[in-house]
Amino acid sequence: MKYATDKVLFVADLAGTFVFAVGGATAAIRADLDLLGLTVLAFSTALAGGIFRDLLIGAVPPQALRDWRYPAIAFTGGAAAFLLYREMQVIPGMLLTTLDAAGLSLFAVAGTKKALNYNMHEFIAVLLGAVTGVGGGTVRDIFLAQVPSVLHADVYATAALAGSAAMILGRKAGLRPEWAAVLGGVLCFTLRMVSVWRHWSLPHVMNP
Amino acid sequence: MKYATDKVLFVADLAGTFVFAVGGATAAIRADLDLLGLTVLAFSTALAGGIFRDLLIGAVPPQALRDWRYPAIAFTGGAAAFLLYREMQVIPGMLLTTLDAAGLSLFAVAGTKKALNYNMHEFIAVLLGAVTGVGGGTVRDIFLAQVPSVLHADVYATAALAGSAAMILGRKAGLRPEWAAVLGGVLCFTLRMVSVWRHWSLPHVMNP
Amino acid sequence: MKYATDKVLFVADLAGTFVFAVGGATAAIRADLDLLGLTVLAFSTALAGGIFRDLLIGAVPPQALRDWRYPAIAFTGGAAAFLLYREMQVIPGMLLTTLDAAGLSLFAVAGTKKALNYNMHEFIAVLLGAVTGVGGGTVRDIFLAQVPSVLHADVYATAALAGSAAMILGRKAGLRPEWAAVLGGVLCFTLRMVSVWRHWSLPHVMNP
Repeated sequence: MKYATDKVLFVADLAGTFVFAVGGATAAIRADLDLLGLTVLAFSTALAGGIFRDLLIGAVPPQALRDWRYPAIAFTGGAAAFLLYREMQVIPGMLLTTLDAAGLSLFAVAGTKKALNYNMHEFIAVLLGAVTGVGGGTVRDIFLAQVPSVLHADVYATAALAGSAAMILGRKAGLRPEWAAVLGGVLCFTLRMVSVWRHWSLPHVMNP
Repeated sequence: MKYATDKVLFVADLAGTFVFAVGGATAAIRADLDLLGLTVLAFSTALAGGIFRDLLIGAVPPQALRDWRYPAIAFTGGAAAFLLYREMQVIPGMLLTTLDAAGLSLFAVAGTKKALNYNMHEFIAVLLGAVTGVGGGTVRDIFLAQVPSVLHADVYATAALAGSAAMILGRKAGLRPEWAAVLGGVLCFTLRMVSVWRHWSLPHVMNP
Repeated sequence: MKYATDKVLFVADLAGTFVFAVGGATAAIRADLDLLGLTVLAFSTALAGGIFRDLLIGAVPPQALRDWRYPAIAFTGGAAAFLLYREMQVIPGMLLTTLDAAGLSLFAVAGTKKALNYNMHEFIAVLLGAVTGVGGGTVRDIFLAQVPSVLHADVYATAALAGSAAMILGRKAGLRPEWAAVLGGVLCFTLRMVSVWRHWSLPHVMNP
């Protein structure tokens, strides 16, 4: 049973890596980077959040460098975007948003779980779950010399924080870890999708 | 006695963290980031220098993630700036500069001490003291897609380097470690304040 | 014999560090940074690639902080550029390009070798060789708030990847490690120089 759960999680993790890699490569194409830049953005969008989390918790070398399947999947996502960019334009934007929200939820939950495994404080584990989810997109935007979109637009990192927090609270309330993870993932995904649908955004302080 | 010194240092460290967090949050408000961006800039301005130092010396997980009081204080600083931004406009700029200079001095001295504790070469310990002091502001500026101000304006990192170097030299000259730290901190603080007052800046190479 | 090879490698590594430091300092001067910014760019261009590789493979503290000669050489390169910037304008651009290509080749080969020493998968070792070669220039460009040139111009990281891959393939084909390293370095250097000479660049995806 445990084995089956882990296998599902692993496949889902690779799927999230693929989706994020395609997103990074697409951003590279829009910024007119070359093939190398496209590959770097595919890798970093897909893997940087987890790498940064692993460096912080002392899980070195990071999982993304210990298991060659992660960079291989990121590479595949970049190659797919390179070869099929024109064809991909017909994919509805809402499908991309949905896949991205699924990747975010999975990364947040997986990041929180790994931080707990490494005995981080629960408050820190929530932060590290969000770092896992949004770190890749942040690095992507820094490479593009832009203010990371997560800092000023949308409800994105907030959804990851809420999902991670719900997962922790669920565990404290006595939920089995698997169900707490499902609760956190579903909350993150739902909050992200509703916020896109309703055009929610976080408050800004008026700068007088 | 040792206990009292450590307690003073710890309280001062948290105070520096709070001041830097308020500074980061203020920069986020000026750049029109949202509440999440404000929080991220509060955290990173306050904690990134120490986190980077700890990653480099192998003190993993970094202190800022091992002791939840650091992120909690950074969060409090961000929240204070969010709630009281308008009220804070009446605080004289010179008070903010003074508090910031105090935080810089403390971080530089604490960073140098920690690097020495981890057996880094003295030359490296000076660099790591400066990294601790200016790393947070550097990350803040990178998030804002700006050239870090420490690289082109003011006498800021230089004050941290001078303070760290004075602390090392004081120890080599036979000062007790506490007094060497005081010497370094006072030099950093004084150099920073005088340079603001006298509008000192470092030489630029003329680009013909 | 082994000792002699290692000594040659070490001297070459320091030479590459010096060349990269001069390049970073020159970029700082062009961007009108001050003396501190010049020093930071000299350090980070020369050392950041190796530091990042060492953090990722768990070689902590990084070599650049364990052996004070690396930062000392980087500092010397920065000081040379500061003092002799005007005089350096007479150096032919092609000589600078050649020295830089030599530094890139050496860093890529040394980075690949170190990653293999730390038991990284061969595919990962190729990536880490390239990270060692181009990481410094990437950090330099991020400090200058620019899209890293390696992501959109020239054949640069690609040369490092090709050299690293050739080195790995050479080892698998039974070459002695020294000769595999020479093969990789020569391929990287040649590919870089020919691409400058022939104005090669990587394909971009047309953004319709």
